[in-house]
Amino acid sequence: MIFPLQTIRSEAENVNPVIGILGGMGPGATVDAMQKLIRQTPARKDQEHIPVIAVSIPDIPDRTQCILNHSPSPLKKMIEYMRILENAGATCIIIPCNTAHYWFEDLKQHTQVDMISIIEAACQQVAEQRVRHVAILATTATVRSDIYQHALADQQVRCTLPTNEQQDAVMNSIYAYKAGDVAQSRALLLPVVASLRQQGVEKMILGCTELPLILETEVSTTPDIYLDATDALIKKTIAWYYQQVTHPPVAA
Amino acid sequence: MIFPLQTIRSEAENVNPVIGILGGMGPGATVDAMQKLIRQTPARKDQEHIPVIAVSIPDIPDRTQCILNHSPSPLKKMIEYMRILENAGATCIIIPCNTAHYWFEDLKQHTQVDMISIIEAACQQVAEQRVRHVAILATTATVRSDIYQHALADQQVRCTLPTNEQQDAVMNSIYAYKAGDVAQSRALLLPVVASLRQQGVEKMILGCTELPLILETEVSTTPDIYLDATDALIKKTIAWYYQQVTHPPVAA
Repeated sequence: MIFPLQTIRSEAENVNPVIGILGGMGPGATVDAMQKLIRQTPARKDQEHIPVIAVSIPDIPDRTQCILNHSPSPLKKMIEYMRILENAGATCIIIPCNTAHYWFEDLKQHTQVDMISIIEAACQQVAEQRVRHVAILATTATVRSDIYQHALADQQVRCTLPTNEQQDAVMNSIYAYKAGDVAQSRALLLPVVASLRQQGVEKMILGCTELPLILETEVSTTPDIYLDATDALIKKTIAWYYQQVTHPPVAA
Repeated sequence: MIFPLQTIRSEAENVNPVIGILGGMGPGATVDAMQKLIRQTPARKDQEHIPVIAVSIPDIPDRTQCILNHSPSPLKKMIEYMRILENAGATCIIIPCNTAHYWFEDLKQHTQVDMISIIEAACQQVAEQRVRHVAILATTATVRSDIYQHALADQQVRCTLPTNEQQDAVMNSIYAYKAGDVAQSRALLLPVVASLRQQGVEKMILGCTELPLILETEVSTTPDIYLDATDALIKKTIAWYYQQVTHPPVAA
């Protein structure tokens, strides 16, 4: 029995929005984003969940190394994998990696479909919650390239950054987590978090998608002092999805 | 800057095996499979992880309803989404849904790439661990269609099944979990597990991909009495991957 080849795209343009996840940066963060999407979707059965296609091919060059040390750029691979998502029928692409958003505008120029920025999603929550003083916890590349500082520039928000020594600890914590050493990643990160709390920071932006995984216990026990960028991205993605379902764009 | 369109497929055929996950049955089980793949991969950085493409478009008709009540078949959608995976460059397809394996041979006929069966993977572990007495915990469709019983027929293994009343509880537990009601799913399932343990069952095959999620606590505290089919599938998938990397097939 052979069924006619029918791509999801043709259906999607008429009916179904499909979320494309440009993942693998890292793979654990991709799974975390998918998990958060499922948990926050008000579905009563499989069929009511949001359609997702995830490409988690992690051979994309290290984002931080490229920005800081001019090692090979991840852009080419990201465009290549974004095209896989488009061809597979994704109608909105998200990237569960803050540092990769250094190339967000470049990526947008290479696709016809919607994209939702994790940085914009997180900063929108800062505005909505009227937060006045944040700390930025992120990769050294995200911090040094001012991604969050620029995005928050229009808001009256004080940004506290870790000291250079603390920032090294944050970065090493992220690499330790990626290497599977959760204990080491926590040992490096927790003193930085404690120090920032003592400086009167209202919210810590978890501006690297590994951080909510490293701080899973802390975020679940004291959620109010963290702003999880992945969570913000997923909330905005779910809102986008139901907007499309309720008010689908008029076909061209 | 426009990069040449280069599909992953052309690279994959020469170099990289890519795991395709035909998911969404349910979405939580897809994420569980991805999580297990990551946790069991000996990677020290993002780039060493196993490449994965997951299609989790959950509008596939209910597998159990089709088998038991002749409602619409999921086969057409599964073939359609499998084709998305193939076009995206998957070189081996796995399905984190036991009940869907009712159509495994049909699906195999519609693809050129390798497929690994979750049923075969689980039963292989039964053989390797020389288990003599198993209980089969699965959807009513998987139990009634004898999927596991057939696969175990060549082994000297005693199969204990839940009573009809218990089987209804197992099925309702799975649906409750899919509906997001974890407490209800546990309340329904735990008495069945307790009863089967009293009958001298050596291992309980968790032959539905929602079951290891519902029994997460129990599996982590007493892992020896469970045989998690998802885990077996992932172990076999990882072995397949490293086999391909070490001894790539000769190009046609």
